[in-house]
Amino acid sequence: MVNTEKTASPLYPFVAIVGQERLKRSLILNVINPSLSGVLIRGEKGTAKSTAVRALADLLPDIEVVEGDPFQSDPADPRSMAPEVRARHDAGERLPVRRRKVRVVELPVSATEDRVVGTLDLELALKEGRKRIEPGLLAAANRGILYVDEVNLLDDHVVDVLLDSAAMGVNTIEREGVSFSHPARFTLVGTMNPEEGDLRPQLLDRFGLCVHVEGLNTPDQRVEVVKRRAAFEADPEAFMRRFEEETASLRDTVATAIRLCPHVAAADRILFNIAERSLTLGVDGHRSDIVMLKAAKAIAAWAGRDEVLDADVEEAAGLALAHRMRRRPFEDILGQAPA
Amino acid sequence: MVNTEKTASPLYPFVAIVGQERLKRSLILNVINPSLSGVLIRGEKGTAKSTAVRALADLLPDIEVVEGDPFQSDPADPRSMAPEVRARHDAGERLPVRRRKVRVVELPVSATEDRVVGTLDLELALKEGRKRIEPGLLAAANRGILYVDEVNLLDDHVVDVLLDSAAMGVNTIEREGVSFSHPARFTLVGTMNPEEGDLRPQLLDRFGLCVHVEGLNTPDQRVEVVKRRAAFEADPEAFMRRFEEETASLRDTVATAIRLCPHVAAADRILFNIAERSLTLGVDGHRSDIVMLKAAKAIAAWAGRDEVLDADVEEAAGLALAHRMRRRPFEDILGQAPA
Amino acid sequence: MVNTEKTASPLYPFVAIVGQERLKRSLILNVINPSLSGVLIRGEKGTAKSTAVRALADLLPDIEVVEGDPFQSDPADPRSMAPEVRARHDAGERLPVRRRKVRVVELPVSATEDRVVGTLDLELALKEGRKRIEPGLLAAANRGILYVDEVNLLDDHVVDVLLDSAAMGVNTIEREGVSFSHPARFTLVGTMNPEEGDLRPQLLDRFGLCVHVEGLNTPDQRVEVVKRRAAFEADPEAFMRRFEEETASLRDTVATAIRLCPHVAAADRILFNIAERSLTLGVDGHRSDIVMLKAAKAIAAWAGRDEVLDADVEEAAGLALAHRMRRRPFEDILGQAPA
Amino acid sequence: MVNTEKTASPLYPFVAIVGQERLKRSLILNVINPSLSGVLIRGEKGTAKSTAVRALADLLPDIEVVEGDPFQSDPADPRSMAPEVRARHDAGERLPVRRRKVRVVELPVSATEDRVVGTLDLELALKEGRKRIEPGLLAAANRGILYVDEVNLLDDHVVDVLLDSAAMGVNTIEREGVSFSHPARFTLVGTMNPEEGDLRPQLLDRFGLCVHVEGLNTPDQRVEVVKRRAAFEADPEAFMRRFEEETASLRDTVATAIRLCPHVAAADRILFNIAERSLTLGVDGHRSDIVMLKAAKAIAAWAGRDEVLDADVEEAAGLALAHRMRRRPFEDILGQAPA
Amino acid sequence: MVNTEKTASPLYPFVAIVGQERLKRSLILNVINPSLSGVLIRGEKGTAKSTAVRALADLLPDIEVVEGDPFQSDPADPRSMAPEVRARHDAGERLPVRRRKVRVVELPVSATEDRVVGTLDLELALKEGRKRIEPGLLAAANRGILYVDEVNLLDDHVVDVLLDSAAMGVNTIEREGVSFSHPARFTLVGTMNPEEGDLRPQLLDRFGLCVHVEGLNTPDQRVEVVKRRAAFEADPEAFMRRFEEETASLRDTVATAIRLCPHVAAADRILFNIAERSLTLGVDGHRSDIVMLKAAKAIAAWAGRDEVLDADVEEAAGLALAHRMRRRPFEDILGQAPA
Amino acid sequence: MVNTEKTASPLYPFVAIVGQERLKRSLILNVINPSLSGVLIRGEKGTAKSTAVRALADLLPDIEVVEGDPFQSDPADPRSMAPEVRARHDAGERLPVRRRKVRVVELPVSATEDRVVGTLDLELALKEGRKRIEPGLLAAANRGILYVDEVNLLDDHVVDVLLDSAAMGVNTIEREGVSFSHPARFTLVGTMNPEEGDLRPQLLDRFGLCVHVEGLNTPDQRVEVVKRRAAFEADPEAFMRRFEEETASLRDTVATAIRLCPHVAAADRILFNIAERSLTLGVDGHRSDIVMLKAAKAIAAWAGRDEVLDADVEEAAGLALAHRMRRRPFEDILGQAPA
Repeated sequence: MVNTEKTASPLYPFVAIVGQERLKRSLILNVINPSLSGVLIRGEKGTAKSTAVRALADLLPDIEVVEGDPFQSDPADPRSMAPEVRARHDAGERLPVRRRKVRVVELPVSATEDRVVGTLDLELALKEGRKRIEPGLLAAANRGILYVDEVNLLDDHVVDVLLDSAAMGVNTIEREGVSFSHPARFTLVGTMNPEEGDLRPQLLDRFGLCVHVEGLNTPDQRVEVVKRRAAFEADPEAFMRRFEEETASLRDTVATAIRLCPHVAAADRILFNIAERSLTLGVDGHRSDIVMLKAAKAIAAWAGRDEVLDADVEEAAGLALAHRMRRRPFEDILGQAPA
Repeated sequence: MVNTEKTASPLYPFVAIVGQERLKRSLILNVINPSLSGVLIRGEKGTAKSTAVRALADLLPDIEVVEGDPFQSDPADPRSMAPEVRARHDAGERLPVRRRKVRVVELPVSATEDRVVGTLDLELALKEGRKRIEPGLLAAANRGILYVDEVNLLDDHVVDVLLDSAAMGVNTIEREGVSFSHPARFTLVGTMNPEEGDLRPQLLDRFGLCVHVEGLNTPDQRVEVVKRRAAFEADPEAFMRRFEEETASLRDTVATAIRLCPHVAAADRILFNIAERSLTLGVDGHRSDIVMLKAAKAIAAWAGRDEVLDADVEEAAGLALAHRMRRRPFEDILGQAPA
Repeated sequence: MVNTEKTASPLYPFVAIVGQERLKRSLILNVINPSLSGVLIRGEKGTAKSTAVRALADLLPDIEVVEGDPFQSDPADPRSMAPEVRARHDAGERLPVRRRKVRVVELPVSATEDRVVGTLDLELALKEGRKRIEPGLLAAANRGILYVDEVNLLDDHVVDVLLDSAAMGVNTIEREGVSFSHPARFTLVGTMNPEEGDLRPQLLDRFGLCVHVEGLNTPDQRVEVVKRRAAFEADPEAFMRRFEEETASLRDTVATAIRLCPHVAAADRILFNIAERSLTLGVDGHRSDIVMLKAAKAIAAWAGRDEVLDADVEEAAGLALAHRMRRRPFEDILGQAPA
Repeated sequence: MVNTEKTASPLYPFVAIVGQERLKRSLILNVINPSLSGVLIRGEKGTAKSTAVRALADLLPDIEVVEGDPFQSDPADPRSMAPEVRARHDAGERLPVRRRKVRVVELPVSATEDRVVGTLDLELALKEGRKRIEPGLLAAANRGILYVDEVNLLDDHVVDVLLDSAAMGVNTIEREGVSFSHPARFTLVGTMNPEEGDLRPQLLDRFGLCVHVEGLNTPDQRVEVVKRRAAFEADPEAFMRRFEEETASLRDTVATAIRLCPHVAAADRILFNIAERSLTLGVDGHRSDIVMLKAAKAIAAWAGRDEVLDADVEEAAGLALAHRMRRRPFEDILGQAPA
Repeated sequence: MVNTEKTASPLYPFVAIVGQERLKRSLILNVINPSLSGVLIRGEKGTAKSTAVRALADLLPDIEVVEGDPFQSDPADPRSMAPEVRARHDAGERLPVRRRKVRVVELPVSATEDRVVGTLDLELALKEGRKRIEPGLLAAANRGILYVDEVNLLDDHVVDVLLDSAAMGVNTIEREGVSFSHPARFTLVGTMNPEEGDLRPQLLDRFGLCVHVEGLNTPDQRVEVVKRRAAFEADPEAFMRRFEEETASLRDTVATAIRLCPHVAAADRILFNIAERSLTLGVDGHRSDIVMLKAAKAIAAWAGRDEVLDADVEEAAGLALAHRMRRRPFEDILGQAPA
Repeated sequence: MVNTEKTASPLYPFVAIVGQERLKRSLILNVINPSLSGVLIRGEKGTAKSTAVRALADLLPDIEVVEGDPFQSDPADPRSMAPEVRARHDAGERLPVRRRKVRVVELPVSATEDRVVGTLDLELALKEGRKRIEPGLLAAANRGILYVDEVNLLDDHVVDVLLDSAAMGVNTIEREGVSFSHPARFTLVGTMNPEEGDLRPQLLDRFGLCVHVEGLNTPDQRVEVVKRRAAFEADPEAFMRRFEEETASLRDTVATAIRLCPHVAAADRILFNIAERSLTLGVDGHRSDIVMLKAAKAIAAWAGRDEVLDADVEEAAGLALAHRMRRRPFEDILGQAPA
């Protein structure tokens, strides 16, 4: 399992990414409100997609977890604990607590279902006849961010597993007559290059927000990208120090917004604004309305406000509607563009 | 196995679902008369499909089961008991009885045949040389509801197994020379997004009723959906209390209708009305007639009547005929609509 | 293995099936003369196909089998005994005899080759180092009826096995260096929905007769179907009692016809009538002639006659020729009908 | 392994087959001269294809084999003995000899490569750590006839194995580090229904002769077929007795021809006749010439002559050339017939 | 594992390759600056592609590695050590150091994922119950060159693994509950024949530079190729001696350029030149800018300069841009060139 | 493993093959100069392709091998010895030497990768815990001829393995953590029927020479073929004696040419002649030039000359260029010939 805690390599700072404001915005909104259900980042190769997601780790708030629990159960919320931890809690044990960063867990495109879901510890089973669960990536990602690069190349079977877990907030491991469930609530961040095939509508809809990124198109910005990259490669520590202050400030703003967000209110006028946008654009279902409302609240919280403005809805719509527009029937398409 | 008994998460109340009357109706009719053979819910993503099915659990009546029996045998009906339970009954044992809710069992789209049918307990076989059956989802679903989200993406092999069991009311597990049969009578509820491919006619016909759902299209309703969702997410317990009374009342109406349904009569005029509808619309076979009659009786029972009216048939036809219309021959199709 | 002996569910009586005279006729003719090689029932879903085949069990005559023999060897015919039984017979043992009904064995469309052919008892092999055969569905079907619902969806490998056994009257199990043969003579009854793909000509030709069934198209008949179904579901025992007498009478007629059939004669004129029908219609090969003769004799026996009439040939042709007509070359087809 | 020795069922006599002279002829010629390399029988289903091949067993001459040798080594020809037998021979052992009929071994279309080639005796390997070969169908077919019904449906891998063995006259078993070779010279007889796909040219060319069979097309013949079939089914022993004399006479003629065949001479004129036929018809390669010569000699031997006549070549050409005609280039085909 | 240290065969000298200047240039630039991320060599078969890459081994500089470490950890850089070596370092052990050439490791196109990633030492696991990692080709290639001939024929799964490792600089082995990560930083050199299919854009973009090679097209050059090849085959040692001096001189120039490269400066004017080239040609993302800058610096270092000139950018653009040009939409392509 | 040493069957003499001069020539040239890299024989079935290759075995010169070494190491060339043999040599052991014919090893088209590459001796591993390599066909073919009939039907994986070995002259076996390399230098002779699909360009280019064979087209030659074949089949020993002298003479000429070949000189004029032929015909790469030079020298050696003439180049071009012509772009092909 590769996660940012163990990776020795220095991470390029989030605030040092040139341009790509919508990309950065969508990631931060998900940190402010994790129930936004993730971001899909579509765009050409060689843009800052992966860099931004990895860099996000540095902005994430601390959480409290039960020490030694591979499912990072929250010591303050018995209902969402992993079964073993819950049993200890119910038995009156005082659970050891550790404070650490939220994790960004990467799901490599070549991951097998076993790797994602978890499996039986075969060695123990063969040697001692005992069955023990070997947690998978979904365990590691609980309460964190699950990052899938090239999500459109994922094996169908793994996609099904992701969708099942994402829908239920629960992952179930079943091997050799052992059945084990643990909480698996995570923010899904995926990147894809549309040149290499598209996503199933079901998986597309799973992402709360969607942004499209392109390479920067002014010479000034491009030169700045190259300069920073070269500086970072030459001396990563110095480069990180240069952006330390800006990073700390962003981290504070995020922390404040996280606290404020549950208290942001939206007037009925705002809700009608949202509903009419969905109806006008002809999106499928109601998830778009709910996501727009949540995104607008996170935007307001970010701005330090406790009330949603129409401008917040405007921005939220730009992030939540594009990938939910109903596909036109076949004849329509034929009349306008090649497949 | 994920079933509603164990899921810690609070369930959105059935009565709090805004609109979607036909969807809710078709589910309730199946609760009133389980021999209606289930519902297929077709529709765009993001509508209340899954929410409604999961919420249904709360409305289901209590049943009596033999305590500790994974096949939930009915203590009052020896003929439909699992073999082991039947043997105890025949030996004069007084079976322990437990009263509990009917279950909604979910069949994940990535489920393997082993998971659905059941398998051998390998551990026991290897360690003690004894063979014991590990029951599958069909055992858990006996006398309950089997729910398949995205039923059109199910593996062909699993579809065959479902059809075999559904047709026979019996599930047979055969592994390594052990053959074991147990009753498997369940109401099949499936959802599908027609954009992702259609069902084999054989599986389509297996569903008694079929409804098509779409997103709501008035701003008022949409705003109400978002408001309720937000309220539910903010404080699930308070939200459930708000609908407690309405839920209790619905539960009573359902219980009354269940008792009344077997006593609802249908005049010959009603039967001819049914037969003529099938002949006029050109459906395949006779299942449509039988399902229409059953649905009409359940509708009458719901209304507290003990006689079917023409209006009941009218409504039943709307739920039972659409997915059974004969497909037109190839040339016809070419002349009128794209594939 | 699911066979009618063990199924606890009550069976809908054969004589209570409304209409569908050709379907019922073709099944009865195969009972009268098992060398007719079965029936293929083509037709839309929801007609009485499966009900009729399952109900057939009740009409089947008794046979004598060697008690405890999984291959149901005939105690009176040493040449067709299973090897083990034959060895006991040859050693002068007096074989225990049991009288019981001919079986209808169902071959589920998801059956594996192992399940059909039989396999090694692995448990015994691993524990005691002895090899013993675990008989499959072909063993259970010996001297009985093998019923395949949706025969056109059968796995190619299983089809090959069926064809090999059907052609040789012998099934051979070969696993891990053990080779075992046993008699496997059975009447093959298959159903299929032509909408879901057709059969390989080789398998098509294996069926002696073929009937096409459709839903009934008069309101009177449809109402009668629904009434009977509802009555059966409400109280199966009462319903079966209602048709008891009619069933007993049919059983007697069948038994008489079975005894008479081998003595039915066919004049040369009849044989030429048969040959000319095949030549005129351009069927492949000679099986049509042989099947027509056998069917005509069974029809005569059913009518209590010991001589074939031209009308018997007329009816037999209707059952034996349709699925054997030579397929026209490609250009022909293009000019006349869609694929 | 299913071979004619063990099959209890009575065989329909070869001489009782009505018509189909070319089919019967081609089989007999291969018995007279086994180096003719077999026959491919193409034709519609339900003709006497399989019956004729199975019946052929009864006409085959006796051969001498080493008693108990699964490879039926010839006690008189050390060079073609299986290695084990050869070793015993070389060690001066006097090998026990048994006289028996040449075998017709059937290769079922569902046969696996293991079944055809042979495999390791796993039981022995696991229990005693010794490796022993379990001979396959190619061992059983050595010096006999290998019969493949529906040869065009054979698995590609099995076809490769057949071609390798047929080309080398040797079959090699290689499993788990054991390598074992044994002689595998056999006459390949295959049947196929051209409606179900054609053969690879390489396998096509492997068959020395090829005949096309169709159903008989005079009422007289068809009636005779049905009469004989009915008589055979009613009382097989009596039927066989009826043709006993004719069978014995044919068996004598064949035995005489076998002895005469190596002594049949062909004048140069005959050889030029053969070469010009191949050149005129544009067949690939030289195998056609060699097969024509051999077939013509067998025809002469059958007629009791020791010299080939032009008429013999004429008949041989009809059997040897059709399946070797060069396929025309693509454009040609397009211009004349649909693919 | 086949690497150049063990190969006994003499290597054709790099400097003896006739022509193919861009090919040789691109390889040398990667030796000077390994962060250039490799070369893709596209071209027809039979050109000097493989010879050049293999010959490159002789020009590579020496590096220091920890003796006996299969991951060739750098004794001077604890942060990039393999975990085991790092542990020894952290424990204060003085690590044994060996000086040797950078390696060229070949990844055969038939390599399995296990072979590339590494696997568990099964023997040890079975015999001693201990788990030990068996390093794969990515371990061998750390700090070296990974060479894939016919990279476009690589198995998809192996491509995914290469991309994951290349992006992270880390390879993770996960088998049977063991998870192990080690550094895997390598220069990827691939060859491909475009006639046999193209690369996925994601893998294409992974290569820093790309050159196209063709056969030489003057008789003089071709004759020289043949003469040298013949001389080499006749007496490899003599041939190598003939080019010894030229090789030594090239090796010196390379070593000097390696030292100089980190100190080469690029004025802002140069950076704008680079950015404008990318914008004008419409390449995807920013990797082209970064690669052009690095390549231009390596070119300057090679020329002994410590400042980049516009001519260096010109040459770098020729190597870095061609394979990154945005593919035009479908209609465009149809109008201009066949697929 | 089937190789010509063990095959008991008598071989048809090379010199008795009628016509097919180019085929015989190309094989002999490869015997004279094994670095010519083999022959691809394309042509219709039933020509003398396989006969010629098998017959070649009888013409091959003797070589010296280390007795008992499965890799046939050359006792006189330590650098190309298998590792075990090299170790014994380096330890000063005097290696036992055996003189025997070069081998023709056949690679059956159904060969698995294990069979070709070699594998672990599992029996030894399981019983004694020792790992020993079981050499494959590439070991047997070292310093000999590897013959693949129907090379275009070879499994892709096996083709990759052949190409890897052929390019490196080394075969590497890797199983269960054991890695073992041995020399694998062989002359590859393949036959193919172009009707059954073509070769990948990469494999095509691997063959030094390529000839196309057709059936003979004069009656005289065809009659001679048949006469000889019949004589051979009637009495192989007598037939071989008839050609003994001619065979011996050919064997001498070959042996002389082998000794002379390394001393044949080619003037610069000859080299330019070669280069211009490649340029004029537009072949890919430089392998054609090198192969033409080698073939021309072998032709000269065969003629007893020590200098290449233009006529030798002319003949060499006919054998080396046809399969290397560049394929024309798509539009060209469409305009001129069907695919």
